[in-house]
Amino acid sequence: MSKQQQRPAARPKARLPRGLGDVIDADVTDRQEMIATITAVYRRYGFQPLETPVLEYLDALGKFLPDVDAPGEGVFALRDDDEQWLALRYDLTAPLARFVAEHRNDLALPYRRFQVGPVFRQEKPGPGRFRQFYQCDFDTVGSRSMAVEAEACALLSEALEALGIERNAYEIRINNRKVLNGVLATAGVDGDTPEGVARRSHVLRSMDKYDRVGLDGVRLLLGPGRKDESGDFTAGVGLGDAQIDLVVGFVTAGAGAASRGEVLDRLRSLVGEAPEGKDGVDELDTVDRLLTAMGIGSEVVTIDPTVVRGLDYYTGPVFEAVLTQGSFGSVAAGGRYDDLVRRFTGQDVPACGASIGVDRLLAALRHQGKLAGSVAAGPVVVTVMDRQELVRYQAMVAELRAAGVAAELYLGNKGIGDQLKYADRRRSPLAVIAGSNEFDAGTVVVKNLLYGKEVSQGISDRAEWLAAADVQQTIPIGDLVSYVQRLLAGPGAQS
Amino acid sequence: MSKQQQRPAARPKARLPRGLGDVIDADVTDRQEMIATITAVYRRYGFQPLETPVLEYLDALGKFLPDVDAPGEGVFALRDDDEQWLALRYDLTAPLARFVAEHRNDLALPYRRFQVGPVFRQEKPGPGRFRQFYQCDFDTVGSRSMAVEAEACALLSEALEALGIERNAYEIRINNRKVLNGVLATAGVDGDTPEGVARRSHVLRSMDKYDRVGLDGVRLLLGPGRKDESGDFTAGVGLGDAQIDLVVGFVTAGAGAASRGEVLDRLRSLVGEAPEGKDGVDELDTVDRLLTAMGIGSEVVTIDPTVVRGLDYYTGPVFEAVLTQGSFGSVAAGGRYDDLVRRFTGQDVPACGASIGVDRLLAALRHQGKLAGSVAAGPVVVTVMDRQELVRYQAMVAELRAAGVAAELYLGNKGIGDQLKYADRRRSPLAVIAGSNEFDAGTVVVKNLLYGKEVSQGISDRAEWLAAADVQQTIPIGDLVSYVQRLLAGPGAQS
Repeated sequence: MSKQQQRPAARPKARLPRGLGDVIDADVTDRQEMIATITAVYRRYGFQPLETPVLEYLDALGKFLPDVDAPGEGVFALRDDDEQWLALRYDLTAPLARFVAEHRNDLALPYRRFQVGPVFRQEKPGPGRFRQFYQCDFDTVGSRSMAVEAEACALLSEALEALGIERNAYEIRINNRKVLNGVLATAGVDGDTPEGVARRSHVLRSMDKYDRVGLDGVRLLLGPGRKDESGDFTAGVGLGDAQIDLVVGFVTAGAGAASRGEVLDRLRSLVGEAPEGKDGVDELDTVDRLLTAMGIGSEVVTIDPTVVRGLDYYTGPVFEAVLTQGSFGSVAAGGRYDDLVRRFTGQDVPACGASIGVDRLLAALRHQGKLAGSVAAGPVVVTVMDRQELVRYQAMVAELRAAGVAAELYLGNKGIGDQLKYADRRRSPLAVIAGSNEFDAGTVVVKNLLYGKEVSQGISDRAEWLAAADVQQTIPIGDLVSYVQRLLAGPGAQS
Repeated sequence: MSKQQQRPAARPKARLPRGLGDVIDADVTDRQEMIATITAVYRRYGFQPLETPVLEYLDALGKFLPDVDAPGEGVFALRDDDEQWLALRYDLTAPLARFVAEHRNDLALPYRRFQVGPVFRQEKPGPGRFRQFYQCDFDTVGSRSMAVEAEACALLSEALEALGIERNAYEIRINNRKVLNGVLATAGVDGDTPEGVARRSHVLRSMDKYDRVGLDGVRLLLGPGRKDESGDFTAGVGLGDAQIDLVVGFVTAGAGAASRGEVLDRLRSLVGEAPEGKDGVDELDTVDRLLTAMGIGSEVVTIDPTVVRGLDYYTGPVFEAVLTQGSFGSVAAGGRYDDLVRRFTGQDVPACGASIGVDRLLAALRHQGKLAGSVAAGPVVVTVMDRQELVRYQAMVAELRAAGVAAELYLGNKGIGDQLKYADRRRSPLAVIAGSNEFDAGTVVVKNLLYGKEVSQGISDRAEWLAAADVQQTIPIGDLVSYVQRLLAGPGAQS
């Protein structure tokens, strides 16, 4: 449409659509640095970058809607000028499927890619729930090897530790849908009839309430039903005691185990002779051995049958990374999904990958004080006392920048008091001040805007630095760069 | 919409909408590194990051359509679930205007931000013309000082040189719309009547053909009209000789000048007493003095009256950065635009900024061989000869990664020959091979996949490295990491 058609008659309101937000200053930098740290680990694991466009054909995104429990979940869709439907990607997996299908004849398989970028959900936003947010995915396409799962767990561990999360502050939990299927088969809760599927789904919902209702509650939900504190009654699945024992045995198979091997032994006895269950335990067994070979014990990666995340979506192992301190919960999740490319080509292509929740992890690190977000994030501000001397102020700024110092000339038209307030709001560490007296004497004044903060935090303990860090100092103009560099380097630096 | 509604009956085709592309491997990395280099310069100049969402309200984007010459230009628009129109941003300036208007009471002015990200154009794509592409902007909002323009030119120069473009391979050209207005006023080509505006526009179009038709051609177009080689006649503006002399004098005022001061002298005499023209020359004069204070001479920044870029959009100085070698032309452009926030608030807020064309610059650097795109971009591949020994292969991979080497285990199920082909297609520098013989002897084989390439490029001249770089070497398994690190470090490294 043309400029004329778009120009509104009245003044538009300056605001964002709900569920969308701006990110500023240190928040942008922190996220960028976090992504850089994570993708460096992705690269070291042999994943290579891919960037697909934000827009795709709607039919190419059609499957893999991630939250099947949220049927209102939608995508932002629009018609192209040739009347075909386009949509904003809602995750990075569907575009990967399209990419692999499109280039299947040229691609060296296994194809291992990572992708970082915003995804979009057309849904009701809520507190902390945005309609645009970042995903940071890695996937391996074209391999059935359990080494893929083992590597994914190792990678998640390494990425979290690279971000400064200590080994005892997180846990990676792996489960296998096949094991659950085997246990249910052994318990006689299977079958593809509508009744069988509904029953199985009822069992899953009951298991998923373990955290909330405890073991006895789950037993009731699997059996005759359960009355909650308010007196409301939830109908039970109606399983018999032996069946309930099996399911509860599965849910609690990870509890109190000293090693992954111990959990595997318990699972092996639970699945009995069910072929899918045995297969699932064997898969976890392989993952266990490979993790051990990489030096990763059960203090890092546990086998945890309570992980049911996205179980309907994945076809084999599923895993998640959880912060064990604070209430941030899962910060990464993934698993094996084997019908990635089939919807395009009819061919089965095995795949497995995971997604790190950058924004949630960022919130967690900030909460833990791991993102100090430098107090002095702003540039050194060279103030302007005498507008006629703009050229001399500009030259000082240029000198500072040439030495690698972030610096700016005050570009507004306020007085010196307001300029210093401006510097403070910019979170500048230092302001440079010079008027005719200083220019005549060949000096400048450097005002330390962080002095009070530094001292109150007890950071400065070197007498020399303290002296230099005095609120403001008059120095020879020729010393400006070295003086500023020394102040910025802080109390521990050599002068 | 639900999963069920979206699932198509037939298999969708795996393809992208036209004008959209995937970016892979080294192309992603190169662009990221380029953006990191540029934004480091932005930060040193005191600009701070902002990230606005990809979607905005359509009415908030309404103005500032950048290419007024392309009336078919449009945005990708869609209705939100509350029936309001949203659109994908088509540049980063309109979101900045919305942000500043929205936060005008909290923002420390001048506000100096940079933003990098994809923008979207709903238009006919063509060769090299995409409907999603990157912009990389910096803007200063709330300052009328010409120091903003001087800094913008200095910044562009520094950014280009930081990317490896030598000082003689680019030029930054600055012009001022006010000077042109002054010259046209002096020539009597002004006035706000429809005829006056049409005539002025006709003059601008004629000037803009200077590159194509030369000086004599422009004289004809400004005067009686011009017949081209094919015999077609283009009607002229009908100016008299004195008027034509003024306009042509303006167009050629930069030709053969030894300094910016010389161009300024010529412009000053051309604008005569026209107030806007004098004001415009004074502005350029200030920019000149500030650039000189920063040590930036006319070999870097020239005053060039032929720069007419976006002249209808900008309100004062305009500038562009041009690569003078090759045919890549303008790689960055910007200027002053003073009605940024007015459409939201009714208040005038002066602003000036520029945009670096990341994708075009990337193409230019690649063409000039400045993005070597490491031959060995891929990871070291540890091949799998004996599937029973997966654990041992996996341990080698873990060891390499722990030493910071990008490495991967071969995860497919092909034989060793195909595994080496895979490594080659992944552009792996080295493959690690071990079978039962090697395991028994405590050794591994390292195959140098780049050997031939290196030698043919004459890179290797150290005898010791040449020996180590032999096509394949059997080494003790305990030496794997140090051996691989030495090979990857290349011929110049100390062993």
